[in-house]
Amino acid sequence: MKTEVNMLTKDLPIGIFDSGLGGLTVMQEIIKLLPNENLIYFGDSAHLPYGNKSQKNIIRYSLANAKFLQKQKVKVIVVACNSASAYALDALKKELDLPVIGVIAPGFFSLMQATKNFKVAVLGTRATINSNIYQKLILQKHPKASFYPIACPLFVPLVEEGLHKHHLSSLHIHEYLQPLKDKNIDAVLLACTHYPLLKELIQNYLGKKVLVIDPAIATAHALKELLEEQKLLTSKKSSSYKFFVTDDAKKFKILGQNFLGMEIKNVKEIEPL
Amino acid sequence: MKTEVNMLTKDLPIGIFDSGLGGLTVMQEIIKLLPNENLIYFGDSAHLPYGNKSQKNIIRYSLANAKFLQKQKVKVIVVACNSASAYALDALKKELDLPVIGVIAPGFFSLMQATKNFKVAVLGTRATINSNIYQKLILQKHPKASFYPIACPLFVPLVEEGLHKHHLSSLHIHEYLQPLKDKNIDAVLLACTHYPLLKELIQNYLGKKVLVIDPAIATAHALKELLEEQKLLTSKKSSSYKFFVTDDAKKFKILGQNFLGMEIKNVKEIEPL
Repeated sequence: MKTEVNMLTKDLPIGIFDSGLGGLTVMQEIIKLLPNENLIYFGDSAHLPYGNKSQKNIIRYSLANAKFLQKQKVKVIVVACNSASAYALDALKKELDLPVIGVIAPGFFSLMQATKNFKVAVLGTRATINSNIYQKLILQKHPKASFYPIACPLFVPLVEEGLHKHHLSSLHIHEYLQPLKDKNIDAVLLACTHYPLLKELIQNYLGKKVLVIDPAIATAHALKELLEEQKLLTSKKSSSYKFFVTDDAKKFKILGQNFLGMEIKNVKEIEPL
Repeated sequence: MKTEVNMLTKDLPIGIFDSGLGGLTVMQEIIKLLPNENLIYFGDSAHLPYGNKSQKNIIRYSLANAKFLQKQKVKVIVVACNSASAYALDALKKELDLPVIGVIAPGFFSLMQATKNFKVAVLGTRATINSNIYQKLILQKHPKASFYPIACPLFVPLVEEGLHKHHLSSLHIHEYLQPLKDKNIDAVLLACTHYPLLKELIQNYLGKKVLVIDPAIATAHALKELLEEQKLLTSKKSSSYKFFVTDDAKKFKILGQNFLGMEIKNVKEIEPL
């Protein structure tokens, strides 16, 4: 009987949510690693950005998003937003009876794998940085590490405005990251799903000796491991992608291509939750 | 009997709403001009910013905000947000049975009073500029005017981040306003409540020959005229100010002082509507 349930469950789609477009960078890595899985992406664009909202409302929105995905009958939920992962993951795990993974633990893990001198930085939204979640993880596991958390709140609007290759973005990068220049760091984590679009400029500013890490790749691997462990990898050989947004499906389609790296079809706009 | 109703009504507070902090620049001008009026300010910070949301959701949020203020028994509603005024004013006037004024018409009026050569620019959010509302007004009243509408979507996050005097804001101003430099404009309207905080830098960039206009002052005057016409000016000699927000009352108190020009007390955080 159990086998039969699993047979059904494992072919259900994977649910992914984010405050808007950013999570599509995570979806892109999931598609690369798990090309046969069906995916449902939920972008809560009516409430974006999460990164400057309070913990209370980030939890509220995250629970609503996850419950929406649960109704779509997904087998697992990926919280593809650092601010939501930082504040809402515990609440989600408590409230939902299906596996939930976020981007924080995979990001932290790949940062710790990358560093040799244990002098590292984490760049994120104000919400993510203020949550102190990376600081707690680093202090628990590597108490002697030198850790530099930097909130870069303007990176999201710069990317949303398509300025991720613009010289003004380089100047903002200079402004935010200047304090890192004399710290001898060797690895930096992009702890916001928008930031990978700025990776090239950030890499140029920090120089080749610093590894710039996008947690999307590690998150996709963590998801694959979880699916393997729980025997939830799909048995199908084809995949489909569906998208739901709470504001402006048209804008999501147009701008989303930059984040996902492919054309976006099948978007449904629903009422804000 | 009518006189008695008006006696009661005229001492009710004025309701003001905005997506967050910006409308406090309008409230400041209302306080200066109408110091005896009680004011209730509603900041829908759970859904901010409005300027990059769709018309549908801007109307949805505006109606919810106005209905909340109506329940607080206000005598008039001021829509202190250009994006909401641009998209939702008609819906608000239709749905509510009390007077509603926005910031668009007063801003347009003061722009037309300021210009001598009828070469003018309007700076706003993407929503406000895309609504074409100023363009329609100008074409109706002054069909020969040269009109330059410019969306400056990064101005809001720059101001929200407290960078309104920062050299990076000057560079963004240069980037957005460069097309105006050879157009011989003599007046520019700041059609977003955040932009007055950038007035000094914008004025420096455009030079002394260009009048930079904040619609908040004209909005306060339009409100006064409306109250006079409808015999709704208060008879009281003292005033009180109440604030409601849908996210992070603490942040609103701290950052709001820059916008209001005075200390903010008496803020209540309520659930998103």
